[in-house]
Amino acid sequence: MIIVMNSSATKEEIQSVENILVNLGFKTHPIYGEIKTVIGAIGDKRLLDTEMIKNLPGVENLVPIMKPYKLASKELQQNKTIIEIGDLKIGGNELIVMAGPCAVEDEQVFYATAHKVKAAGAKILRGGAFKPRTSPYAFQGLEEQGLKMLDIARNETGLKIVTEVVDTRDVETVAKYSDILQIGARNMQNFRLLKEAGASNKPVLIKRGLSATIEEWLMAAEYVISTGNPNIILCERGIRTFETATRNTLDISAIPVVKELSHLPIIADPSHATGSWKYVNPLAKAAIAAGADGLIIEVHNDPAKAMCDGPQSLKPDKFKELMQELRTVALAVNRNI
Amino acid sequence: MIIVMNSSATKEEIQSVENILVNLGFKTHPIYGEIKTVIGAIGDKRLLDTEMIKNLPGVENLVPIMKPYKLASKELQQNKTIIEIGDLKIGGNELIVMAGPCAVEDEQVFYATAHKVKAAGAKILRGGAFKPRTSPYAFQGLEEQGLKMLDIARNETGLKIVTEVVDTRDVETVAKYSDILQIGARNMQNFRLLKEAGASNKPVLIKRGLSATIEEWLMAAEYVISTGNPNIILCERGIRTFETATRNTLDISAIPVVKELSHLPIIADPSHATGSWKYVNPLAKAAIAAGADGLIIEVHNDPAKAMCDGPQSLKPDKFKELMQELRTVALAVNRNI
Amino acid sequence: MIIVMNSSATKEEIQSVENILVNLGFKTHPIYGEIKTVIGAIGDKRLLDTEMIKNLPGVENLVPIMKPYKLASKELQQNKTIIEIGDLKIGGNELIVMAGPCAVEDEQVFYATAHKVKAAGAKILRGGAFKPRTSPYAFQGLEEQGLKMLDIARNETGLKIVTEVVDTRDVETVAKYSDILQIGARNMQNFRLLKEAGASNKPVLIKRGLSATIEEWLMAAEYVISTGNPNIILCERGIRTFETATRNTLDISAIPVVKELSHLPIIADPSHATGSWKYVNPLAKAAIAAGADGLIIEVHNDPAKAMCDGPQSLKPDKFKELMQELRTVALAVNRNI
Amino acid sequence: MIIVMNSSATKEEIQSVENILVNLGFKTHPIYGEIKTVIGAIGDKRLLDTEMIKNLPGVENLVPIMKPYKLASKELQQNKTIIEIGDLKIGGNELIVMAGPCAVEDEQVFYATAHKVKAAGAKILRGGAFKPRTSPYAFQGLEEQGLKMLDIARNETGLKIVTEVVDTRDVETVAKYSDILQIGARNMQNFRLLKEAGASNKPVLIKRGLSATIEEWLMAAEYVISTGNPNIILCERGIRTFETATRNTLDISAIPVVKELSHLPIIADPSHATGSWKYVNPLAKAAIAAGADGLIIEVHNDPAKAMCDGPQSLKPDKFKELMQELRTVALAVNRNI
Repeated sequence: MIIVMNSSATKEEIQSVENILVNLGFKTHPIYGEIKTVIGAIGDKRLLDTEMIKNLPGVENLVPIMKPYKLASKELQQNKTIIEIGDLKIGGNELIVMAGPCAVEDEQVFYATAHKVKAAGAKILRGGAFKPRTSPYAFQGLEEQGLKMLDIARNETGLKIVTEVVDTRDVETVAKYSDILQIGARNMQNFRLLKEAGASNKPVLIKRGLSATIEEWLMAAEYVISTGNPNIILCERGIRTFETATRNTLDISAIPVVKELSHLPIIADPSHATGSWKYVNPLAKAAIAAGADGLIIEVHNDPAKAMCDGPQSLKPDKFKELMQELRTVALAVNRNI
Repeated sequence: MIIVMNSSATKEEIQSVENILVNLGFKTHPIYGEIKTVIGAIGDKRLLDTEMIKNLPGVENLVPIMKPYKLASKELQQNKTIIEIGDLKIGGNELIVMAGPCAVEDEQVFYATAHKVKAAGAKILRGGAFKPRTSPYAFQGLEEQGLKMLDIARNETGLKIVTEVVDTRDVETVAKYSDILQIGARNMQNFRLLKEAGASNKPVLIKRGLSATIEEWLMAAEYVISTGNPNIILCERGIRTFETATRNTLDISAIPVVKELSHLPIIADPSHATGSWKYVNPLAKAAIAAGADGLIIEVHNDPAKAMCDGPQSLKPDKFKELMQELRTVALAVNRNI
Repeated sequence: MIIVMNSSATKEEIQSVENILVNLGFKTHPIYGEIKTVIGAIGDKRLLDTEMIKNLPGVENLVPIMKPYKLASKELQQNKTIIEIGDLKIGGNELIVMAGPCAVEDEQVFYATAHKVKAAGAKILRGGAFKPRTSPYAFQGLEEQGLKMLDIARNETGLKIVTEVVDTRDVETVAKYSDILQIGARNMQNFRLLKEAGASNKPVLIKRGLSATIEEWLMAAEYVISTGNPNIILCERGIRTFETATRNTLDISAIPVVKELSHLPIIADPSHATGSWKYVNPLAKAAIAAGADGLIIEVHNDPAKAMCDGPQSLKPDKFKELMQELRTVALAVNRNI
Repeated sequence: MIIVMNSSATKEEIQSVENILVNLGFKTHPIYGEIKTVIGAIGDKRLLDTEMIKNLPGVENLVPIMKPYKLASKELQQNKTIIEIGDLKIGGNELIVMAGPCAVEDEQVFYATAHKVKAAGAKILRGGAFKPRTSPYAFQGLEEQGLKMLDIARNETGLKIVTEVVDTRDVETVAKYSDILQIGARNMQNFRLLKEAGASNKPVLIKRGLSATIEEWLMAAEYVISTGNPNIILCERGIRTFETATRNTLDISAIPVVKELSHLPIIADPSHATGSWKYVNPLAKAAIAAGADGLIIEVHNDPAKAMCDGPQSLKPDKFKELMQELRTVALAVNRNI
């Protein structure tokens, strides 16, 4: 950590900051510049809350040298985390595609969609039973009844299940039915939910918040890992920018950045990011080409009847076509689906 | 609602969209342009989920004419909502200042701060007992012990209490000790928490999410009002932008915009928005000049020892000075403190 | 165009808006809703400045139905524009890679780099002679001397040349030496420069502005096309967001969006977008997978000595490797390099 | 300057970076941490281009300690710059209001507006003769004819003139007619125009770019000052964010931040920032309360007929009312108008 003192800091103020740092367990190295003094503070204290130092008299700024996350970082673990769910591996050479409708609604449509995404090559079935909706008047999900439909679809197709949990009080129930717990973008900094999901010992898929930095996203993962649960899948789903042609801006750069900083697998969600099925195909390919470990894609047998996010859902035929094209792109970057 | 058909939409597609709209209860008025057809759909159906219409064949876009919120809108209620807590009124001509430390920590420091903000003219005491922190290693709050300290401070000073709730499971407990429940920026779209807080029948202060539009913020209010609880205070606390000189960008325009759209009182939080005590004074004045109904300001007796957000906390003397200056600014816009 | 009248608009105000629209040449279709009236205005008047209508009494909002650009839009021209420079075609099935250093500096290093990017398969040589730099104290380019070095490199290697022009007074000189005129991100709305570049009759490469919407970017293209010069290459180079792990956020979605809206070729610049050579490889692949018509990549023989943007420059060996890998990705999406 | 070496940097790489720094004239102070080494580099070399250091082998990051601007900074000059134009002082205790229409159009309307803003207390008349418009089909300004109308209005009213220049080739002409040269938001990083405007020796008003950081804005000022022209007025006019209720987000925090960092006067433009006359009044007051040295406000005698930005223009009566209210707000913060 580097502490930058302002140009009018007194000797006493500098000495006082050094004393405090030493008391916290740092070794200090002051550097006296022509205009400003900076203090190097040696010691890996990232588990220490050092924000108060910023407020000491004479301090201009505090520059961390170490990343604030530890368990999620590549410095701690060089090898990529591979998550095993039965015989399925997420984070290995094989790319994993999760697919299904935004929400679980009509039973027959849902099972039909499940069979079709399975046939096209998806390994995991998605479908929301608890839906976080912007409007209180919008469809909020079938709740436990939806979870039961997910369970039936799993038994019928052999697909694994990923579904969202939105309330600490539901974690136990959702964990009973689902193979992976999804933390939605709006809950990425719902820290209580992160801890509760971590404690369930199911793998946790963490969507990036709409305005979360990559560092904050990795800190959300750190919350889960610090409960003792290392099985985390990060999911880039678009960030909020000024552009309005797409619902959000899929930050594809986040894929190589996360791979540089962390050992955790990362997938992309082109459906929510763009908000339009027309752009799902090119962005799914882009994510794979950039190194993503998988994708989560909305597929609906009858998008015009979807009660949620119909406009961004692919029909099963388009999804099948996409899966075939993705196989070629995956091979081009030495992966397979 | 206006449905814009794309330039290659067929007669059958246009007819089909009209039929669906009629079935949903709208009256339809198609307008045939040279290149595109648009369909006007008459009827106030904002409680209806119409997103699926976007996905009908031939539809290019859907333009809502009505706002998606109803109970929070000025169209429904012209008069400003005034929230009464004992003899205190929020939303009236008198501006209400909430002040106190970010978190409740040391007991004696906390009570001393409480007495000083009271003396300076604050009417409500703030202090977090449950702290949502970016890092799992940072201080997370004293929880119920902190709530008890808030209660003691209330009894000692006569100040009302506002404190944050971060988990649906804690709403009942927090409501027992607090006069106002605060929903933090990170939980603005934690819809379950909004509903639970609404059901407590305590006034709810909703901070704007870091990347929330004003419309989404009013929808969060709509969630609370739709539980039957009309006592909502909106709090602008800065949005995330590319600028790094301040922690966030206080969107002062949101104050007149909210006053144009809604009957709910709105206050500003210059401390969290800027992240630096140096900018709290000018931005507090700006918020009042722009029409805010109050402020929430961090004050700490010994900011250098604060375990949370010290750099943005005013010392009691600076706060007292600010309160005096704010009185003049308030008078200049025909309000008083 | 749809004009939305506010809920308190009077009959007279509605009539007055209709009269004005009719005088402007529109046919009008009012739709009287329960709460608001909207007026459909038929006629393709996008060359008309209709902003003043927003300001008429009783008007709440104006919703354009047609895009504001015409010559750049796919509605006017379905077939993709293919730009021919000698035997080179930009916008066809073959992907075009532009490569070279950020700025033309040391003569021998520059020629050596030029030969190496040619050997690796680049078709166009980049290199700035006029550099728009954030600091007045930073290297501003060799100006005409740099242009002459570009010319020599062209003669030596057979590569075409793309270089930036930053001042209307330099357009003629730059056009004398260069095959393509580059308009930088900071000048995307320097409308005089766009017109002057258009008038040169050289192909114009328009970088997207740091905070430009796709629509504004296409309007910049419209400025050039409206001078009679249809040879425009759009270049996505990252937009400004709150994320700081990369310099900017490469908006890969812009590639399929532009292809949906316009007939103009679009390329991507992963070097400037990310600011780091480490991320150039995965993002170059992502851009191709998403459908880009080419790339512009910084390559420098000795990045540690580069006076400008060294950190984002690939060494020639890494560039050669990338080109080989890109060939496979291109084939996977039915393109070739 | 602090150079952070990555955790796998070798002794040779660290030594090599030190050697290079010493050759550049720095004194170096390495600090060997447990995991990473950082090198303190002493010496005020902000006029030196040190970006290439980031690209040296083993370097992870470079942390500047000094601001990149010098002449614009408060470190160099503590006293506020006061710009004198005849008997008018900008930057002193008296607040200066600039007002007038977006563009100079109809001669009689323009002169009438000029007289009215003068009567209401404005000291400077605004009006564009060269208009940078998003669409090539929109009104682009009356050019020199417009400048002449500005000159006539000056003679008639005694108001000073501020008007925009958009092309290096026009600087001389605009400087002939105008008292202050305005650099628009879109040209904030048109560095050639900044230099040319600086060389005119007229005061230069620099609007903040739509996505410019405060640091980049001060660097734009540094461009002008480094030509020998110290008379710069900074103008905050809103930045681009995801919020759509206002055209841009007026960053009021920028006012105290600029006052902390620089000696230059700063004003605000609530008209362009919000895009709606309804929000001009509260935001004008907010800017004054936050410490702005003045305002620039659009006023039009007949906004419904304005060819440009009518919706954000105040009618003269509303402007007069605003000026009266502003006087009270100014007094409340110990300024006067």
